[in-house]
Amino acid sequence: MTFQVYDTTLRDGAQREGLSYSVVDKLAVARLLDDLGVGFIEGGWPGAVPKDTEFFQRARTELDLKHATLVAFGATRKAGVAVETDPQVRGLLDAETPAVALVAKADLRHVERALRTTAAENLAMIQDTVRHLVRQGRRVFVDGEHFFDGYRHDPAYTASVLEAALAAGAERFVLCDTNGGMLPSQVTAAITDVTARTGVAPELLGMHAQNDTACAVANTIAAVEAGVRHFQGTANGYGERPGNADLFAIVANLQLKLGLPVLPEGCLEQLVRVSHAIAEIANIAPDTHQAYVGAAAFAHKAGLHASAIKVDPLLYNHVDPSVVGNDMRILVTEMAGRASVELKSRELGLDLSGHPEALTTVTNRVKELEADGWSFEAADASFELLVRSELPDRAAPRPFALESYRVLVEHREDGAVVSEATVKIRVRGERVIATAEGNGPVNALDEALRVALVRHYPELRDFELADYKVRILEGSHGTGAVTRVLVETAGVGRDWTTVGVHPNVVEASWRALVDALTYGLSRARV
Amino acid sequence: MTFQVYDTTLRDGAQREGLSYSVVDKLAVARLLDDLGVGFIEGGWPGAVPKDTEFFQRARTELDLKHATLVAFGATRKAGVAVETDPQVRGLLDAETPAVALVAKADLRHVERALRTTAAENLAMIQDTVRHLVRQGRRVFVDGEHFFDGYRHDPAYTASVLEAALAAGAERFVLCDTNGGMLPSQVTAAITDVTARTGVAPELLGMHAQNDTACAVANTIAAVEAGVRHFQGTANGYGERPGNADLFAIVANLQLKLGLPVLPEGCLEQLVRVSHAIAEIANIAPDTHQAYVGAAAFAHKAGLHASAIKVDPLLYNHVDPSVVGNDMRILVTEMAGRASVELKSRELGLDLSGHPEALTTVTNRVKELEADGWSFEAADASFELLVRSELPDRAAPRPFALESYRVLVEHREDGAVVSEATVKIRVRGERVIATAEGNGPVNALDEALRVALVRHYPELRDFELADYKVRILEGSHGTGAVTRVLVETAGVGRDWTTVGVHPNVVEASWRALVDALTYGLSRARV
Repeated sequence: MTFQVYDTTLRDGAQREGLSYSVVDKLAVARLLDDLGVGFIEGGWPGAVPKDTEFFQRARTELDLKHATLVAFGATRKAGVAVETDPQVRGLLDAETPAVALVAKADLRHVERALRTTAAENLAMIQDTVRHLVRQGRRVFVDGEHFFDGYRHDPAYTASVLEAALAAGAERFVLCDTNGGMLPSQVTAAITDVTARTGVAPELLGMHAQNDTACAVANTIAAVEAGVRHFQGTANGYGERPGNADLFAIVANLQLKLGLPVLPEGCLEQLVRVSHAIAEIANIAPDTHQAYVGAAAFAHKAGLHASAIKVDPLLYNHVDPSVVGNDMRILVTEMAGRASVELKSRELGLDLSGHPEALTTVTNRVKELEADGWSFEAADASFELLVRSELPDRAAPRPFALESYRVLVEHREDGAVVSEATVKIRVRGERVIATAEGNGPVNALDEALRVALVRHYPELRDFELADYKVRILEGSHGTGAVTRVLVETAGVGRDWTTVGVHPNVVEASWRALVDALTYGLSRARV
Repeated sequence: MTFQVYDTTLRDGAQREGLSYSVVDKLAVARLLDDLGVGFIEGGWPGAVPKDTEFFQRARTELDLKHATLVAFGATRKAGVAVETDPQVRGLLDAETPAVALVAKADLRHVERALRTTAAENLAMIQDTVRHLVRQGRRVFVDGEHFFDGYRHDPAYTASVLEAALAAGAERFVLCDTNGGMLPSQVTAAITDVTARTGVAPELLGMHAQNDTACAVANTIAAVEAGVRHFQGTANGYGERPGNADLFAIVANLQLKLGLPVLPEGCLEQLVRVSHAIAEIANIAPDTHQAYVGAAAFAHKAGLHASAIKVDPLLYNHVDPSVVGNDMRILVTEMAGRASVELKSRELGLDLSGHPEALTTVTNRVKELEADGWSFEAADASFELLVRSELPDRAAPRPFALESYRVLVEHREDGAVVSEATVKIRVRGERVIATAEGNGPVNALDEALRVALVRHYPELRDFELADYKVRILEGSHGTGAVTRVLVETAGVGRDWTTVGVHPNVVEASWRALVDALTYGLSRARV
């Protein structure tokens, strides 16, 4: 039976403290997960969360998934209500996804104390809802919430929940370590016991681990070793409390350590790119020490054995870093860079294999800029401009030259807040001064620049500032603070992201805006 | 046989990229680890690293350890050299510690390619050095470097290394997963196999795991379950690449999940304090999502089940947070209801149970504000101000009234970028106008406000803008964009976070700044 790699970054992972995705973010994360080749993407709770309802609506036209099946998450019908009339269940069907995941209480104490209903009614709620959804043509997964704690407390009842869900037509029953307190040996024992008790094959079960014992990845591996073929996790382990199981470490371990091909051919090498891009979208600094994908995951303090490492790198790395898209780094003699710059450029349609000097220049420039806090992981357009600037026939023309700009924000006595920007630029030999207002300093600057440019570049009218993210970089208290801005621009049919770095947030934004317009105009003219 | 809890924060943990302890730091870390009750503290490599030589010298008079035995780390004698004349071995004895740990190559490939000596000479180096140190009255631990990879490659040779070390008088032979590539089931299989092959009892073995598969804690637990009674780890899992096994998660799991009393009575509740204090010394931001000890380790997005959590917290926590010195936290989110507002308020020391109208008002206000894009889950200080504003005797006084402010950012013709802010406010009946520059618009505004206030509130000098995060909220393309700003302020002994929301990023920042100062001043005056 094939493996089901089930991602819940957009639903359970969004429970992480401080994390909040926009609908556009969710669509972008889904595309990245699909690039990685996951089998299922749980997108949210339609009907209950308005943002998720919109996500599923837009997904129908805006998501063209190559690998993944979209899943709507929700609850079983309410106690004492007919499933056909339950509006929450209706919301799940209205999402029009091929599959639905239902959360079901698998611990009798939660049934009685949180749900405040009876053991029997809980089983009826599960069966009614599964049958109803299956009749409507949905594939149904049932998440057995608090399965492991419940099974320890009252194995007979928890087993009956599992049996009820599968008997009603659920495709898988997922064993959830909701409170995250399990250890691998305990997971193995529980799965062995419940499959013996019920006669249910482990292939019909799934695993959902949380990281409260720092064993979520290991618990998931233990379940797979016990025969489970469906596992849930999130990008970078994002999730409530210490987080969910890190789906990226799980798939890398299964493929590289146990030889189980859980992702489509050629996808695993996307791991670093997808991990870092999702971190940028979530506006969480990538964990440099994260297994497999962290910038330090294959970094060695060279010391005594530098030459041995160079000759025999695999004696010092548990896997070849390139198989997950990472690089080995020697902290004294930097060896990384060229390969990934070349790979990334090729991905953007720019072949550097015949331009070794350009490759060297770009690699060095990227290293310098990244040392200053730039990050190109989520800013393909800025990276592409950088590469093209080293290829004479491909360089993007600079649409204008800046003389100066000025931005003013006032909070007036009457409470009104106004922003105004003036730019002075040269466009095709002409000096242009333009002033515009905006809803904030960056918007005003963007507007003023457009006013100044639009006569020469009417295609600018099709570009829209779609998203804007700011991060103060680590270790930068007080006046030394460095700000990184990501600007996402929506054009005709596609979006692109650019980056700017500067101690001043307005200047950092300006740099990202200029890249955004330069890139958009060079594309519009192709 | 009792457990040996062996900490290597100060030696192997110091290999983490970017980490550097002073001697004073090392002494402070050792005291904290001793408070936690670890059995062994590996302090460094005397003779080889000058800072470590000094650490061991000062430790003799400045460290008064209650629980721990100090260990000096080093290598076996050089190939072809008599152990008595090897200066590196001399350095280990000069450290005058009760115990010494020796690193020994346990993988024949490393013996031949990195050490460039023979299989037999490697065994002789280990035996000579162990015997020499034992004769000098030292307890000796031998770290079998690359044990697991070596055992897979050539089990007979790797087993002979283990046997040689123990035969020469080593107290324990430590199985090191130096490259960190193991999974728990593989650890179990290797220990079962090597103990059967050699007849060595697992009690004579130790475990040292690295986190490259995100399984270091689980690998250590697996070794203990296989009978190993000595395990190594580091504070917070600091170490090279993805790090070492997190000693804190290991001891918490062993005590709380397997009922093994590995720390002295009463020590486990020091876990959070020791973890955070070591993070401060290491100058690494504590990981809020770390298992057991992170600030978010027991944080719940309350939502639907807040009332159930209130009645039965242990149904929602895998352990009682207080046993490791942590607290449960309820996050106020989009789905905030009365129960979660009440619970959160109580956590902040504000009892709303006797104020039903205030509770209603706060709950409604939170819902309104969250619908407008505010988020209190990461902004406890703004939430506290909101609650206190509804409790007449607890309301924080407003330190000033705003008349107007103005912020200017200029990119001048010479390329210089300057920010300047002017605020006009009323403080205690006086009208004050102040202007300041900053490295960006928000910093300038912050500075101008401080200049205006500092004569009336000198305690402001102790507050520092520690972090600043900006998010453009969803569904907010173009002019309707709403910006959310989080400001973290560092004060004497603690930090607090406030939130501001507005279409204009400067005004949103202003609101968060005003909350930050209001909160800080009301606390400073308590």
